[in-house]
Amino acid sequence: MANNVYKKIELVGTSPNSFTEATANAISRAAQTIRNMTWFEVVEQRGAIADGEVREYQVTVRVGFRVE
Amino acid sequence: MANNVYKKIELVGTSPNSFTEATANAISRAAQTIRNMTWFEVVEQRGAIADGEVREYQVTVRVGFRVE
Amino acid sequence: MANNVYKKIELVGTSPNSFTEATANAISRAAQTIRNMTWFEVVEQRGAIADGEVREYQVTVRVGFRVE
Amino acid sequence: MANNVYKKIELVGTSPNSFTEATANAISRAAQTIRNMTWFEVVEQRGAIADGEVREYQVTVRVGFRVE
Amino acid sequence: MANNVYKKIELVGTSPNSFTEATANAISRAAQTIRNMTWFEVVEQRGAIADGEVREYQVTVRVGFRVE
Amino acid sequence: MANNVYKKIELVGTSPNSFTEATANAISRAAQTIRNMTWFEVVEQRGAIADGEVREYQVTVRVGFRVE
Amino acid sequence: MANNVYKKIELVGTSPNSFTEATANAISRAAQTIRNMTWFEVVEQRGAIADGEVREYQVTVRVGFRVE
Amino acid sequence: MANNVYKKIELVGTSPNSFTEATANAISRAAQTIRNMTWFEVVEQRGAIADGEVREYQVTVRVGFRVE
Amino acid sequence: MANNVYKKIELVGTSPNSFTEATANAISRAAQTIRNMTWFEVVEQRGAIADGEVREYQVTVRVGFRVE
Amino acid sequence: MANNVYKKIELVGTSPNSFTEATANAISRAAQTIRNMTWFEVVEQRGAIADGEVREYQVTVRVGFRVE
Amino acid sequence: MANNVYKKIELVGTSPNSFTEATANAISRAAQTIRNMTWFEVVEQRGAIADGEVREYQVTVRVGFRVE
Amino acid sequence: MANNVYKKIELVGTSPNSFTEATANAISRAAQTIRNMTWFEVVEQRGAIADGEVREYQVTVRVGFRVE
Repeated sequence: MANNVYKKIELVGTSPNSFTEATANAISRAAQTIRNMTWFEVVEQRGAIADGEVREYQVTVRVGFRVE
Repeated sequence: MANNVYKKIELVGTSPNSFTEATANAISRAAQTIRNMTWFEVVEQRGAIADGEVREYQVTVRVGFRVE
Repeated sequence: MANNVYKKIELVGTSPNSFTEATANAISRAAQTIRNMTWFEVVEQRGAIADGEVREYQVTVRVGFRVE
Repeated sequence: MANNVYKKIELVGTSPNSFTEATANAISRAAQTIRNMTWFEVVEQRGAIADGEVREYQVTVRVGFRVE
Repeated sequence: MANNVYKKIELVGTSPNSFTEATANAISRAAQTIRNMTWFEVVEQRGAIADGEVREYQVTVRVGFRVE
Repeated sequence: MANNVYKKIELVGTSPNSFTEATANAISRAAQTIRNMTWFEVVEQRGAIADGEVREYQVTVRVGFRVE
Repeated sequence: MANNVYKKIELVGTSPNSFTEATANAISRAAQTIRNMTWFEVVEQRGAIADGEVREYQVTVRVGFRVE
Repeated sequence: MANNVYKKIELVGTSPNSFTEATANAISRAAQTIRNMTWFEVVEQRGAIADGEVREYQVTVRVGFRVE
Repeated sequence: MANNVYKKIELVGTSPNSFTEATANAISRAAQTIRNMTWFEVVEQRGAIADGEVREYQVTVRVGFRVE
Repeated sequence: MANNVYKKIELVGTSPNSFTEATANAISRAAQTIRNMTWFEVVEQRGAIADGEVREYQVTVRVGFRVE
Repeated sequence: MANNVYKKIELVGTSPNSFTEATANAISRAAQTIRNMTWFEVVEQRGAIADGEVREYQVTVRVGFRVE
Repeated sequence: MANNVYKKIELVGTSPNSFTEATANAISRAAQTIRNMTWFEVVEQRGAIADGEVREYQVTVRVGFRVE
């Protein structure tokens, strides 16, 4: 068995609706340029407020993918 | 450009349905008395259990608003 | 009033749909064998990725219950 | 059931005798102006030294109270 | 010399009087069912407030005991 | 000697020039409405970027003042 | 696909030789009574000293296993 | 409104003069190859000493930029 | 006004009775050899267990004193 | 002297034998594509378990290299 | 090549003007009695307030030096 | 039984071969001048890289010894 090496990058996904959707958006966007993604870790949850309501949910994730 | 100063306060929102809704509830309640809120940061997620099910989702947020 | 003592255990719930559902799944499963659960604390949020999409949301919770 | 919202404030209580008394002093003082306090969390324990002895125990607590 | 293995469990002790007593209560209760306990670590100190006074001191401890 | 009680509030100061100036701006602004401030703690340093240069230094401070 | 639930327990392994061996010892001992262990996380590394030399390496690990 | 996605990278800037200048140097250098940078977060401050004086201030920053 | 410089050292005090007494013991012992101590910070609270009861409370403190 | 700027990336190395070897594997793999690497920081140690034994040691490292 | 061993000590430097100057003051003072200092790490930034203005910037640094 | 007091100092051991050996080197060196050392805690693991390979493993330990 090979000794795999992985790289982690840090992304911030956003969504007007929920933390879960913001997370999914970050992963989907990353998939356009990165292969072999296998896991993510949530490292921060924040958001923007406008007119007294949550305007945007923001989730910072570390995404791990295997280095080929 | 003025050197803005912001204040952060810490709130706990609750919801029987989800962490996202608990977060939104905290912001909405704060909007009744605070103006110029521009961002929030999630600092803790907890909850209450009753009869073996989640009864309440609780999210602690720090809310930042511009001091006039 | 008795001086209650509580125990905390650490569980990881999973869900293909959201962090909130993953949390609820962990609590529901624990309820099959543990009584008197009263609160939980989220300590980690991660997930698995497959084919460039989130395949599984994973939430680590500490669950507190009263020791009888 | 209403979706309660709570606010947390941060106080530092002091006592020449013990950490427990410093904590109690902070809560008692807050009770003069705040209603509906329901819990506190210790976030820091420090103290002042004079003439080679502890002169003052200092406990920083976050106090949570329900917003009416 | 054997290579001992220890297990840690997490308990919350309570007391109406002090953090120290809350800690002692958690250990005493654990002693009813666990043998070979050798150390503990304080991981959190909180409490409940009622009528503007501390009603209960709560101390979360991790207790280590040798696995036989 | 009285058992003093202190309150801490959290502010974000900004400056186009340095972290130190951003800190000083937060304190100066707070002095307009708060008396008896005696110490501050830096809890976060961030900033805004525009056109590839730092546009604003931002320092979050917790400011402690004696409750009268 | 079922929504698996995992439990984490905290163990301390020891070894006179290395941190890696202390980790392996904790896992091996746990395997005598726990099935379905799938991962571990190192949370603390300490040790005992005697006569000016390391006498024992100690590694605290959280071990995750699937709840059946 | 599009659901923007951001990436964060981690840089260490250096300066013989101050932490603020070290921070600015990291941002300026990054601007040579990265567009759309909008914020940074300080995550570590260190430095090198030579001949009993500070020779170099080092600031680790996480820089966020919008993914196009 | 001189620009004072302070040094911090880390001590562990012990007591069979309480965390507060363990803290006081560490400070008293340090006073035998260190002058100008002005403050301390609690950084860890642990203890030893024997026969199912707390045998020793242990408090790690950082003690600050002015360098002459 | 130039004001050097460094970049940090986050890698996960794996090894069936030890944490040290997992660390070395991550660095060696990175060396295939990155020049001027000068230091690394261990940020997490985990592992996979199979059949009651450690199957893989995993070390997450932040690797720093000078930006040319 | 010898296997060097380093010691770290913790100092607090102060300055009426800036965090950077407070840091430099701590290092300069330490140089009077310690040789071979090679690096420092900032671990805390605080300050004193008087009359509504920052009176003193305080920086806690850990200083590393080679043990001869 | 006397109420023992302990002091902790912070050392960095190095080794070209492994984290375990770097730890042991720090303890051995300290033993030349310090008596009554009884435990250590690993607080940081880093290393130096040269020519694309790990050149030096570095382990920061806090070493505790009884004050006589």
